Formats: sequence, C-alpha cells, structure tokens
Amino acid sequence: MIAHKRAGRVSEIADFHVLQISNAARALAQQGHDVIRMEIGEPDFSTPKPVIAAAEAALRNSPLGYTCALGIPELREAISQFYASRFGVDVPADRVIVTGGSSAALLLVCALLFGRDDEVLVSDPSYPCNRQFIRTMEARAVGVPVGPESHYQLTAGLVEQHWTERTRAVLLTTPSNPTGSLIPQASLEKVAAAVRARNGALIVDEIYQGLVYDGPASTALSVTSDAFVINSFSKYFNMTGWRLGWMVVPDGAQKDIEKLAQNLFICPSALAQKAALACFTQETLEILEYRKSQFRSRRDLLIPSLRELGFRIPIVPGGGFYIYADSSELASDSQAFCADMLARTHVAFTPGIDFGSHRAREHVRFAYAAPYHKLEEAVERIELALRAAVHC
Amino acid sequence: MIAHKRAGRVSEIADFHVLQISNAARALAQQGHDVIRMEIGEPDFSTPKPVIAAAEAALRNSPLGYTCALGIPELREAISQFYASRFGVDVPADRVIVTGGSSAALLLVCALLFGRDDEVLVSDPSYPCNRQFIRTMEARAVGVPVGPESHYQLTAGLVEQHWTERTRAVLLTTPSNPTGSLIPQASLEKVAAAVRARNGALIVDEIYQGLVYDGPASTALSVTSDAFVINSFSKYFNMTGWRLGWMVVPDGAQKDIEKLAQNLFICPSALAQKAALACFTQETLEILEYRKSQFRSRRDLLIPSLRELGFRIPIVPGGGFYIYADSSELASDSQAFCADMLARTHVAFTPGIDFGSHRAREHVRFAYAAPYHKLEEAVERIELALRAAVHC
Repeated sequence: MIAHKRAGRVSEIADFHVLQISNAARALAQQGHDVIRMEIGEPDFSTPKPVIAAAEAALRNSPLGYTCALGIPELREAISQFYASRFGVDVPADRVIVTGGSSAALLLVCALLFGRDDEVLVSDPSYPCNRQFIRTMEARAVGVPVGPESHYQLTAGLVEQHWTERTRAVLLTTPSNPTGSLIPQASLEKVAAAVRARNGALIVDEIYQGLVYDGPASTALSVTSDAFVINSFSKYFNMTGWRLGWMVVPDGAQKDIEKLAQNLFICPSALAQKAALACFTQETLEILEYRKSQFRSRRDLLIPSLRELGFRIPIVPGGGFYIYADSSELASDSQAFCADMLARTHVAFTPGIDFGSHRAREHVRFAYAAPYHKLEEAVERIELALRAAVHC
Repeated sequence: MIAHKRAGRVSEIADFHVLQISNAARALAQQGHDVIRMEIGEPDFSTPKPVIAAAEAALRNSPLGYTCALGIPELREAISQFYASRFGVDVPADRVIVTGGSSAALLLVCALLFGRDDEVLVSDPSYPCNRQFIRTMEARAVGVPVGPESHYQLTAGLVEQHWTERTRAVLLTTPSNPTGSLIPQASLEKVAAAVRARNGALIVDEIYQGLVYDGPASTALSVTSDAFVINSFSKYFNMTGWRLGWMVVPDGAQKDIEKLAQNLFICPSALAQKAALACFTQETLEILEYRKSQFRSRRDLLIPSLRELGFRIPIVPGGGFYIYADSSELASDSQAFCADMLARTHVAFTPGIDFGSHRAREHVRFAYAAPYHKLEEAVERIELALRAAVHC
C-alpha cells in the first residue's frame, strides 16, 4: 500500500461516469445478453484498408525508430495540403504538429499556455477530459452554461461576460461532444475577436471535423490564424487505437511546442504516422465519405424516433455522432434513468453529469456509433420499457 | 503571431543541447560527410522480426480500437510473468500499467504525486526530461550532485541530507542515463527505507533494465513493492518508435492512475501492445540477448580506448549504452569541445550540460548505439584530432 500524499489535482479530476455504464454493459454482454452500446465515443468502423496496407508496407520497409518530435515531414505536408484541398485554407506545414492523439495535443497546448490559477472558459456541457488537461497544469476550467439558443456553444457575449483578469483562453469544441452541434462561422469570428481583444488564446477542438451532415466541413483556420486548432485521426479517419492526432499552432509557437513535445513525448508513433499518410488518398477519402453518409442516416433515424419517445432535442445536431437529449419529461434524474434503462433494455447511453453540471441531470447523450439496425432495435427496446413504465 | 502569455514552466524547461549537436550532425551527413552518431539515446538495432510479425498479424486480424486505459490484459499478464521468470519477483498483473512510452508513465506518476512547489530529489547528472515532467506539474526537481564514489547514484545519506519538508519523492534511474552506472541493490534498499521513513514516494526508472553487462539484470521490485517502477519497450526491446512502455505501481495506486490515464491518454497504441506481446517469447529474447552481447563488446572496446585518449572514466558503467567521460584534461569546456570535435572529426557526442550542472562542463556523454567498426573509427578520428591539437 502506498503511504505518500497524492497531488491535489487527483481528487478534483472526476471519474468518468460513463465507465460505470460501460462496465455494466460489458458485464451484461459477458453474461450473454445482446447489449446495444450507445455510450461510447468510438466509431464502429474499422481502420480503412488503404491505411492498414500502408502500415503493412511500413512494417516491411521502414525504420520504426524515433521520428522528429513534431512528426514526419511528409505527414505534416500531407495535412497542410488537406487543409488547402478540402477547406481552401493555407496552413503551412511548419505550423502543423503531429501528436500522440489529440490527447497529447491538448496536453501540449495546456502545458504551453496555462499555469497556476489561470482560468479557461469552456462550455457546460462539454467533453470532460478537456477540463482535466487544464486542471493538470494547475489551472482551472470555468464552465459557462450554454443551451440550444447558442447551439450549445460559447458566444462572444458569453466570453465577454465571463472573462476575468485570470482568464487566459477559451476552449471550443465544434462539432461538440456531447451535443453534436457546431458553432456558426460568424459566431466563431466574433469569439475569436473577443479573445484576441483580451490578449487571450483561442483553442478550437475540431476532432469531429470531417463528420458534419448538413453542409461542407469547415475549420476555424478559415477565420483566424492565431488559434490553436486540435484534430485527430481517431474519429473521421477511424484510427482510434492508433493514438494519432495533430494540431495547428499560431506562427511563433512552434519552438516552444517542440521543446515541450521533445521532453514530454519524444515523438508520436512512427508506424501510425506512416500509416496515416494513406488517410489523404482519394481511395481512403471515398471510404470515409461513404461512412459519413452512414452516420448521417443513423442521425436521421434517431432524431425523430427519440423525439417520439419523449426526449426533447431542440436543435438537430449537425455533426459528430452524438445526440444530447433532454430526458426531463421521462425521468427526474438522468443518471438513475441511464442505469435503469441499461438494466431493463440492455441499451447503454451516458448520463449528462459526465459533461458538466448545467442541467446535467436532465440530459443524456446517445452515441450513434453502432449499425443502423441496432439503433432501430435500441429505439424499440426503449419504447417498450417506457410504455411499461407508464402502465404500471 | 501569438500575443498571449506562455506559462511560467515554458521558459524554465531547458532546450536539449544535444539537439544542436544532432542537427549539426545531420546537416554534415546531408552534405555527404560520414558522420558517426554517438550523441543519440536510441539503439541502432531494428525492431526484432517476431515483433514485426506479431504486428502484421494484428493488422490482419485484430480490431485496433481503443483498449483499456491501463493496457490489454494479455500484455499486463505477460509483463507480470516476465518479472517472475527473469527476476524471480512476484508482480501481480493488476499492478502493471501499460503506457504510451515511459514518457507517459512518468507523466502519470508525476501527475499523481506532485503539486505546487513540491520537491523531488534527483541525481545530478541525470536524464533531463525526467526533471521536466516534475516541472510540468508545478513541482521542482532538486539536483543532488553525485560522482563515481556513489556510482553516480543517490544514496540514503544524500537523501537524508537533502530531504526538506517540501520533499515528496526520490527519482532514481538505474542503469543511469548519462552515466550507465547502476545503483547497488544494498544501497537501493537503504534509499527505499529512508524514503519510506519520510512518507515519501520512490520512483525508479528502469528503462535500461535489460542492458546490464556484468551480472544478471535486476529490479527495484525485488527490494520494495511500494516503489513506482518505470520501464520501456524502447531500449532493451528495440521498439523506440512504437512509443510503448509500462510501469509497476504500488498496490492502491491503480485506481487513481487509471482515472488519470483515461483522461490524459485514453489508452496506449493498440497495435504496439499486440506487437509487444511477442517481446517475451524465447525467440525474441534470444535475439535481444545477442544484441546485448554486442552492446557489451562495444562498451569493452570504448572504455580502454577513451581512457587512452585522455578521458577519465573512474568506474566502468555496468549498463545502458552510455559512457560519461570526464573530458577536463582535454578541454576546459565540454560544450565547445563537442562542437569542435564534431566539426573536425564528424563524430557527434553530447556535452554534460544536458544532464545537470554539477561538473557538467567537465563531462561528455558517449552513446554506443552504433556498430563496433564505427566506434573503432570514431576513436581513431578523435585520436588524430587530439594529436593535431597538441602539435599546433
């Protein structure tokens, strides 16, 4: 047994409640039950074949030693070109930094920017890990309540209202986890201007960037070149377990990020980087766009179905693979509701308390990273359970 | 250009001076010069074939999604069995935590243990990154000067002498980088007792564990079960670019580490974990032991040769692939000496200032991660340059 003190941050970093649901779901599955997993933020699609083939070739032919701390030049160049071809925005390769997942990118940005008692504005609800990177650096994430009226995103007005002398930055996620909603480009421009006027930093988490359904994908880099923009090969590119991501940093930040990356990570996985080069080929992008269309079908199935069941979904989420649904007409406490539904229907989804405190007990998050027919069945099971509840 | 403040830690985290040497070495090589690289801490051996084959099989057959945050159970079990078979020590698999390189392990341990103004005793000289993990958590590494009289390692006496009310832990590296020297097990026992008596934590970095030349490899876990023991697949197992490591934590620390790992990393690379399962087969271990014998031959070539050139090497380093040599009879400033030798001989090695401040300008580090005949040639070139210097 350990006798020594733990750092203060440890008790402040919350457990993932979703893991209780996940563990219970796994246990039910192991008992032989047909569990439908809608609680996890992982695409159900496997890594695209051309990426696997590139990894096989790298295993045969490449040295797999340490790479440059900021990533192999070919991959940084490929990402730069992807910004040009897909988004029409000029991002020089030397501002592209490859990382061990977006996790490592967020850790580097937070290590660069945040010290003791600094404050960072984030939306409530938002993805919990992002707050923990901030807390790890002895700074503090300040949750700003948001709702459907602002697409569950921060606005310039909210930034101005909550900015204090301790505030150093704003962290946005678009498309958002857990709400799937996007910040409109016009609103993003205003947020960027408000942050810039306060000499703050803007961090935009775009890890669900490719997964948008009602128009072309966009990037904050079209609006501002002095944001830190986080991205990932996990979600759109279906490479979760490879642990590879990237970020684009403002000109001038590369040297400090390089120093931190050398010290804290040495480099990202050599093999994952070589494999990821195949992400940007026509062949892979066609696979990914087809998969995106499947995500859209799932969303378009679930939104009306869940609404019919009594969940309130005030705005249609434009991206990601999440639906943040108001469950208050069905249950007073969404955490108990999730546990109850899992036990009775074997459908797993996530209580709102994982994502903040603002109306958290009135919301649940559904992830639609499961096949269409499974989602149909999930809706059916929930419907039956809700009817049974009404009748008894 | 970025306008915002950087965190205080950024200016305090030092640049790697070795990178200046490395960049200069690479530039010379690109100009067509035959540069002998003795400045880098990376084995020149490629990943063993059975590990590559395991990765190929995993690419064909396995899902490569997120794994458990603490690593796949099979790998944790394999590591546990390796401690039993090779070191005769019982380490339950649930205390083994697989990480994205030893970098991620150190980051997790430091996040767990260290907060504002906490102090951690480390030897001077020692590996610089380890100090930066501590600084990242707003704590401070306190360098304790060590020399050949204690095998360049901390002793219980030094720990007692330098312990203050702010001290939370001692961090040892054995075999050491940059000195290659080992802490004797008897001394380690005393250090562990001194730390325990002060309710401190003991962290033992064993990333060069398998690479010892004058006896069997050992582990701190034979001496104490309440240390945090860091290890890696990079050095002995020749998997640098895969970014995979592990640590063994004291019983009771698993839950907090799991929470931190989930938040900060999600999980280590799935593919690297599946590949690493092949590290512990008889076939791979035979390859690695053969390579170890080659490292030993290189060491045994270099020690007398460098001594003959005028470098002082008071004790023969028992492990790693480093020689920390006193260059004070050859040059007054080892940093200028390294730059000069690189320019004149095209042999790259590292100035002592990368590893601390105690007698740093009187020392250089040679890494013998290059083939035997290259090392012979390096010695020859340095000899010629030194002779030329004497004669002019």
